[in-house]
Amino acid sequence: MRLTSFTDYSVRVLMYVAMKNGELASIREVSGIYEISSNHLMKVVHLLGKGDYLETIRGKNGGFRLGKEAKDINIGELVRYTEDDLNIVECFGNKDGRCALKEECNFSNVMEEALAAFLSTIDKYTLEDLIGDKKLVTFFNQ
Amino acid sequence: MRLTSFTDYSVRVLMYVAMKNGELASIREVSGIYEISSNHLMKVVHLLGKGDYLETIRGKNGGFRLGKEAKDINIGELVRYTEDDLNIVECFGNKDGRCALKEECNFSNVMEEALAAFLSTIDKYTLEDLIGDKKLVTFFNQ
Repeated sequence: MRLTSFTDYSVRVLMYVAMKNGELASIREVSGIYEISSNHLMKVVHLLGKGDYLETIRGKNGGFRLGKEAKDINIGELVRYTEDDLNIVECFGNKDGRCALKEECNFSNVMEEALAAFLSTIDKYTLEDLIGDKKLVTFFNQ
Repeated sequence: MRLTSFTDYSVRVLMYVAMKNGELASIREVSGIYEISSNHLMKVVHLLGKGDYLETIRGKNGGFRLGKEAKDINIGELVRYTEDDLNIVECFGNKDGRCALKEECNFSNVMEEALAAFLSTIDKYTLEDLIGDKKLVTFFNQ
């Protein structure tokens, strides 16, 4: 059980950008820092832009920065936005599906309860909590 | 985020076998009921046998049945046993890994807390809770 790398990168991109404190970041820079493909990263930045998590500025001197304050970015909300599959087990959201047990089974109910516990834990945190008072220079020796 | 199909099938195989109340089940029977590949199912049954969740009996009239009582099979324990990857994010268990943030980052701590909430929820349930007092005949019209 793991989050998609898309979600993983989304959080990490936002953490990095938050630590730049309003200064623009570029795809090249972030893909270098995290050693991730710029293709994949562009998709991440695009979706985060669409969701107003990032403000993206086009052009030669363009780049991206946080679209809202770190304290206003809730991690639970963000994960629900970036994670395309929160169906812990196959039958989730597919109760007419092919499992012979179907809705008479308590397995999916238990898993729904567990997923709710997972999400309500991350609902307690904001992007600010993830980075605390850390400065970019501490992390990346720039 | 989802459990592996291996875990999903493990739980469903145990539910089915529990409802047979001591009668032997066969690979062919279970793969037919759930419409899953018998190859994959054999691996599931093998691992569940190794972990004493199933008692497997070889030979022409062989098969498998529960290796312990349904009320003694804890779902949290089972998922920890069958799920080979509980690393919600890449850096879990790999804090020396390639992420530039490494151990200075709170992301993995928050995810560890969320995973613990997930697991402690399923720790409250046993296989008996999943099947309740349901009879095999209700489920499968046999």
